[in-house]
Amino acid sequence: MSTKEQYVPGLDGVIASETAISFLDTEQEKIIIRGHELIDLSKQNDYIDIVHLLLDKKLPNQEEKADLEKKLTSNYHIPSNIMDLLALLPEHTHPMDGLRTGLSALSGYDEDIDNRSLEANKSRAYALLGKLPAITVNSYRLIQGQKAVQPNQDLAYSANFLYMITGKKPENVEAEIFDRSLLLYSEHEMPNSTFTARVIASTNSDMYGALTGGVASLKGNLHGGANEAVMYMLNEAKSEAEFEELLHKKLVKKEKIMGFGHRVYMKKMDPRALVMKESLKQLCDEKGDHLLLEMCEAGEKIMKEEKGLYPNLDYYAAPVYWMLGIPIGLYTPIFFSARTAGLAAHVIEQHEHNRLFRPRVNYVGKSY
Amino acid sequence: MSTKEQYVPGLDGVIASETAISFLDTEQEKIIIRGHELIDLSKQNDYIDIVHLLLDKKLPNQEEKADLEKKLTSNYHIPSNIMDLLALLPEHTHPMDGLRTGLSALSGYDEDIDNRSLEANKSRAYALLGKLPAITVNSYRLIQGQKAVQPNQDLAYSANFLYMITGKKPENVEAEIFDRSLLLYSEHEMPNSTFTARVIASTNSDMYGALTGGVASLKGNLHGGANEAVMYMLNEAKSEAEFEELLHKKLVKKEKIMGFGHRVYMKKMDPRALVMKESLKQLCDEKGDHLLLEMCEAGEKIMKEEKGLYPNLDYYAAPVYWMLGIPIGLYTPIFFSARTAGLAAHVIEQHEHNRLFRPRVNYVGKSY
Ligand SMILES: CC(C)(COP(=O)(O)OP(=O)(O)OC[C@H]1O[C@@H](n2cnc3c(N)ncnc32)[C@H](O)[C@@H]1OP(=O)(O)O)[C@@H](O)C(=O)NCCC(=O)NCCS
Ligand SMILES: CC(C)(COP(=O)(O)OP(=O)(O)OC[C@H]1O[C@@H](n2cnc3c(N)ncnc32)[C@H](O)[C@@H]1OP(=O)(O)O)[C@@H](O)C(=O)NCCC(=O)NCCS
Repeated sequence: MSTKEQYVPGLDGVIASETAISFLDTEQEKIIIRGHELIDLSKQNDYIDIVHLLLDKKLPNQEEKADLEKKLTSNYHIPSNIMDLLALLPEHTHPMDGLRTGLSALSGYDEDIDNRSLEANKSRAYALLGKLPAITVNSYRLIQGQKAVQPNQDLAYSANFLYMITGKKPENVEAEIFDRSLLLYSEHEMPNSTFTARVIASTNSDMYGALTGGVASLKGNLHGGANEAVMYMLNEAKSEAEFEELLHKKLVKKEKIMGFGHRVYMKKMDPRALVMKESLKQLCDEKGDHLLLEMCEAGEKIMKEEKGLYPNLDYYAAPVYWMLGIPIGLYTPIFFSARTAGLAAHVIEQHEHNRLFRPRVNYVGKSY
Repeated sequence: MSTKEQYVPGLDGVIASETAISFLDTEQEKIIIRGHELIDLSKQNDYIDIVHLLLDKKLPNQEEKADLEKKLTSNYHIPSNIMDLLALLPEHTHPMDGLRTGLSALSGYDEDIDNRSLEANKSRAYALLGKLPAITVNSYRLIQGQKAVQPNQDLAYSANFLYMITGKKPENVEAEIFDRSLLLYSEHEMPNSTFTARVIASTNSDMYGALTGGVASLKGNLHGGANEAVMYMLNEAKSEAEFEELLHKKLVKKEKIMGFGHRVYMKKMDPRALVMKESLKQLCDEKGDHLLLEMCEAGEKIMKEEKGLYPNLDYYAAPVYWMLGIPIGLYTPIFFSARTAGLAAHVIEQHEHNRLFRPRVNYVGKSY
């Protein structure tokens, strides 16, 4: 494994971990989460079910689900020092950086922080999932000089999240589609942010550190940052024709088009993108405005023809979030909040079966 | 590379990157930094030289060195909001977590944050290296409810760092030994924190994010956290005999002994540890107190006999820092500050020759 010939840039295809959490079965074209198929789950279950599946290794019955909802909502409260701290961040701060700082600061409130046991890690995960909507939304708001908002305990977890973002109680269809986006974002095998979290956890570092690293990773536009980049691109064009022109220009300049391509499904469409495209259709029908759907379909066609590339989840999550009235700066932070369920499961698994990640290099520097 | 047989836990021996920065040549027992040997450098050069070597790819002449010192000192200032923010962290916050939060918050002051060019990344690295002593020391102090301290512009970079830590101007020998410890900590091929920083940078995320992840990684006691763990262990015993007893007890309980072993030099002593051991001797002679040296040597003997394991740098850095009057909570943050030179060089190299890190897994979960 350590000769020059075997070096694979980006660890493409290299097995980095054994995991019981999830798997992209490219032969059968299935995304497997603890034995279940994610696309099936997106039709029958909601985000809270998947959180249970990820952290408790099975889908919940009604009682277990109610119990989990309570665990999350009872953790909604954010210490006032954290709010004050977020308000001190300069206006120029990227929303992902605000989230990273807020999440990092939370560690000081964990009295049991040196405990890496399964139970301690699980209750830490619930606490973080409970706090993330408020940290996500308020870091964004406070950086912009807006007033903080409080969670609404009467709403379900994801409905409250959307309520905190938009300031109004969501319609059922909106709450459902937002919940579905969280579900689709919840876990996806070993993307860069999950890998980052496991690498960090492998030094015996704690969940806050692993997740803070995860935010840092997800910010990049080759990863989670793609969803906001897609929306900026859609907004730069005002019509189908303008969007086509924009893509052609970018392709001539050999720019990467955000929202297309994937390390694992390079030659077919991300199955999650298909589900989000359906949701976009549903929202467009609901609002009687099909412009974004038409633009996206035009882009899909061009990329298939010109590059043989297919959309990933971020390509269709972006216009869905736009139609739900979500500020663009929150797209990647929302992705992170949803993914925290998966990341926490991976940190727990890493701590339970640990070996330090410590690879080697090919030295190509000055001779000696 | 993707079959079950080839999975290597912890990527042990797997080549993860091509790099011109550094290499552990285990055959010749050399630590190579851009073509120079680290142990030689530790005898002829100081930390600032190595910063230049890492970031500017050559050792500096006198003028270049003076210029680099000026670049760092001119960046000493920390925005007052950052100080206020650190003061809001709860008292229970680990010093590494305080450092992580402070570093994360700094990104909002970088007006050019989306620029990943070599020049922008280099000036970012100088700015961060300039600010790190003040962030490191003041995050620690403010969390403890102590007053912030200001840098002393008249002192050399590492002498000022030690001055800010202890509150008194260091003797020459103290400043020299502290500088040597920074030099030895500056860069070391592909340990977990460097790997973390490169993995994060590979999404096109920025240097603040990559370094924030690096702090999170270094906190773990299988990595940088080992230096503080060693000192707690030495302090638990009060004499050579008590230390021997403590180690024997831990070995019987099959506990890992912090400060011993290394993924790459498992069967011989870390060459950096030898240099630090010399420095410990020098300090012990100077102060006429050889207890810590004797305890460490006794531990070294036991570990060699019982486990065939040798000390790593952290084992001897810990008692050196103790004899320099450095609070234990600052040992790992100092390691991080020193390593920032190497981490920044790796982030720059990753951005210049990037491919996204995105490995695969062996799925061992429920069948489907
Ligand atoms: C996701 C991604 C990083 C995976 O890429 P990867 O496995 O590292 O593959 P590479 O970047 O090496 O790309 C392979 C080839 O396809 C091209 N390619 C890949 N994605 C492309 C895109 N979105 N636009 C244009 N070209 C693309 C590359 O330019 C490269 O072409 P080349 O061989 O002629 O140089 C890549 O598809 C990408 O950058 N997509 C855009 C960002 C994005 O949407 N990220 C979210 C992912 S969920
Ligand atoms: C640094 C370290 C993580 C490298 O370890 P690695 O390559 O992952 O090796 P492993 O942890 O798999 O150890 C291999 C064997 O040596 C033993 N071992 C390694 N370091 C040991 C230590 N410090 N004390 C006791 N046993 C140790 C392991 O228990 C294992 O024994 P086994 O095969 O009987 O189970 C490991 O040596 C360690 O944990 N050291 C202590 C922490 C430390 O000082 N870190 C700073 C490193 S610069």
